[in-house]
Amino acid sequence: MRFSLFFLFLFSFNCLLGQIGENGFIRSIYDEALIKGESYDNLRSLCKDVGARITGSASADMAIDWAVNIMNKYDFDTVYLQKIKVPHWERGTREKAWTVNKYGQINQLNVLALGGSVATNGILSGELVMFESLEDLKKATKSQVSGKIVFLNEKMDAKMINTFKSYGHCYPIRRNGASESSKLGAKAIIIRSIGLPIDEHPHTGSLKYQSGVKKIPAAAISTIDAEELSNKLKKSTISLKFELNCKTYPMKDSYNVIAELKGSSKPKEIITLGGHLDSWDTGEGAHDDGAGVVHCLEALRILKKLDYKPIHTLRLVFFMNEENGNKGGKEYASWSAAHGDKHIAAVESDRGGFAPRGFSCDGNNQQVEFLKSLEKYLSSYELHIFEKGYGGVDIGPLKKHFKGIPLFGFVPDSQRYFDFHHSPNDVFENVNKRELELGAAAIASFIYLLDLNL
Amino acid sequence: MRFSLFFLFLFSFNCLLGQIGENGFIRSIYDEALIKGESYDNLRSLCKDVGARITGSASADMAIDWAVNIMNKYDFDTVYLQKIKVPHWERGTREKAWTVNKYGQINQLNVLALGGSVATNGILSGELVMFESLEDLKKATKSQVSGKIVFLNEKMDAKMINTFKSYGHCYPIRRNGASESSKLGAKAIIIRSIGLPIDEHPHTGSLKYQSGVKKIPAAAISTIDAEELSNKLKKSTISLKFELNCKTYPMKDSYNVIAELKGSSKPKEIITLGGHLDSWDTGEGAHDDGAGVVHCLEALRILKKLDYKPIHTLRLVFFMNEENGNKGGKEYASWSAAHGDKHIAAVESDRGGFAPRGFSCDGNNQQVEFLKSLEKYLSSYELHIFEKGYGGVDIGPLKKHFKGIPLFGFVPDSQRYFDFHHSPNDVFENVNKRELELGAAAIASFIYLLDLNL
Repeated sequence: MRFSLFFLFLFSFNCLLGQIGENGFIRSIYDEALIKGESYDNLRSLCKDVGARITGSASADMAIDWAVNIMNKYDFDTVYLQKIKVPHWERGTREKAWTVNKYGQINQLNVLALGGSVATNGILSGELVMFESLEDLKKATKSQVSGKIVFLNEKMDAKMINTFKSYGHCYPIRRNGASESSKLGAKAIIIRSIGLPIDEHPHTGSLKYQSGVKKIPAAAISTIDAEELSNKLKKSTISLKFELNCKTYPMKDSYNVIAELKGSSKPKEIITLGGHLDSWDTGEGAHDDGAGVVHCLEALRILKKLDYKPIHTLRLVFFMNEENGNKGGKEYASWSAAHGDKHIAAVESDRGGFAPRGFSCDGNNQQVEFLKSLEKYLSSYELHIFEKGYGGVDIGPLKKHFKGIPLFGFVPDSQRYFDFHHSPNDVFENVNKRELELGAAAIASFIYLLDLNL
Repeated sequence: MRFSLFFLFLFSFNCLLGQIGENGFIRSIYDEALIKGESYDNLRSLCKDVGARITGSASADMAIDWAVNIMNKYDFDTVYLQKIKVPHWERGTREKAWTVNKYGQINQLNVLALGGSVATNGILSGELVMFESLEDLKKATKSQVSGKIVFLNEKMDAKMINTFKSYGHCYPIRRNGASESSKLGAKAIIIRSIGLPIDEHPHTGSLKYQSGVKKIPAAAISTIDAEELSNKLKKSTISLKFELNCKTYPMKDSYNVIAELKGSSKPKEIITLGGHLDSWDTGEGAHDDGAGVVHCLEALRILKKLDYKPIHTLRLVFFMNEENGNKGGKEYASWSAAHGDKHIAAVESDRGGFAPRGFSCDGNNQQVEFLKSLEKYLSSYELHIFEKGYGGVDIGPLKKHFKGIPLFGFVPDSQRYFDFHHSPNDVFENVNKRELELGAAAIASFIYLLDLNL
């Protein structure tokens, strides 16, 4: 990132603050988003006309068509597809799990296979052995686990104020639990869903099988089932029976979908903004990441609608395959480098459609200070967080190819995100119109400030 | 407010920040609220076991019994009732409204009488005359309005980022629309509900009839009905028929419900915290103000549970009659003055159970600076707003009797509040457990900081 001292100097004047911030162009952005906004209707369409859209599915192809159509409708300067190879895993048609206690009483569980899991090949059954954490599992002996089905009951830590921190802590359970269990001879694993509320919705997400370790079936059960099962297992032995016929298919072709507003004076210098078009195959991918997709789409629509002529090229990318491979993000970064792009910043929205709180910067100290310097233009819009932090999964690979590029993550309020994440509950009805619109306005304003200052 | 220089000096050391803030007592408060919290179950009980509880109703009496029981259960130092006289208005059993166009086609409206409205005395009908604002209505002539029913279609301004500012702007419509219409000879008035979403839920709230002006019936229709009706009225004349049999009864006895944790060294000096126990008679009063009630109840429960011995007396007040008279707040202030209390601060929660953002201070500059000095203890809990602002309706009258008292308002995120406010949609299911718990923790922490520093 290069700092224009001239602009920083100018920015320190309140008169310019007025032109940009409270009464200026940013005010126009917010007015457009809140009064004539299209983000909410676009999200409704993505959720209801397309729906869940896991990489490799027909629905993912439908989402690509949806994206091309709407980008063309908005008449951006360029709309194009970027071809990528993606993994293709399908949940299949059979997904049932139930417990049987020593009296033969059954209890059905709300279950979702973890993304990438192998099938059970018919009904698999075994005695459950419970661990309260991945660390406890790793300390177990083969004799404790061998031939059994592991139940990993680690909870998200509700005490962490920012829920993403708690998620980061739990993520290895889902990612590594299967292989860690398999090393000890387990037949299969079920995990407590990584979600904060105690409810009936299981939360899926990707796992990673370690090379050289036998692949075993893995699924998540709802938190309410996990609570009950945990209580029962403290009193007596319980068996699990379950069937999954999920399957991994060969890699296939898919696409990132890209649109641009060309830079007026520095068209070769790119600011990327985006979210991911794929979602899990349950719910409607409303917060994850339909919200991010329509946030960024709306940001570009508003800038164009207000007849803003960007200095740099603003490139909107709907990434494919964030959820189980990040092929879109990786391919975009290497393609962009091979293409000779001069990439100066990237912004991602992938933390849901909740009330905006600010932006985080994955960058050096100078870049973080620059981010903080933008607070004065945005604080009257109730944005307070301007700090070092994460950018986003999709834009992450840009760091490898564009040394020193600052990555910025949009930060909405995190408190409700893990009520919905990767679950059947992540539907349009759980996104608030006004919160979504404020997010789009915050991102459009932020892109405008980046364009003016980088 | 008196500043203890000794404490301010001590507070500047990070070691004490550690003892108080991130790793200290405030951390313990948050842990209790988030892991063993009782606010959500208490709110469920208030909403489901009691329900809507308008002043003067049997449900309001039930809520008083509910409050006494739970305060006794928590074994606070004192629990007592403070007798007050309150207004008593009932919605009655008949509440219907429909339009008839020139072809005789009818369209039923979602309608709620405004609190305090007179009845229609049978079915009242008349031609509608629409105004887009209260200002436009005030400019109208008698010939435009006389004998007609006014439809006041003024919208909440979605462009205002803080929704309470927009509400403040619209509030006179509901309060004064009836008398302003009556002055021009109108038979009755319907207003567009003061709510941000376009939906089917009407929002009630109190009106005020001006002395010497004929009282006419007044009701709110849902925003979706208002949109449709407005479009139709631009094309042709439409009549309204409606019936309300609401009624105002004589004043009756009711109560504020009070509990205390006695101060250890300054028991005569009072810090009041509270919310209002009454609600409107629609929905369940979940955000307004069940959330505030259980926030403050939980704050006191947590401080007691953690064996905190307050310096000053912490007095928890569940005020009665905030919604249509504020008799509880007024009587509490004058009683407290007559009682010889030394009142040093008051805190109210009456802006819903959403994710906390901070606190506002209705006080002088020194008091606002003091508030800002507390941010360092609370910023790691994602609280950012520490600024001059409103205290609360219930605690407002304390200013008259206790000159210079600082009033503090709890500030949660405002974006969703007017989706629910005074509508059938303000139910328990629309309160998020974690957001509610974080609010209770923020208030408990704030009370602790006040007690330590005042």
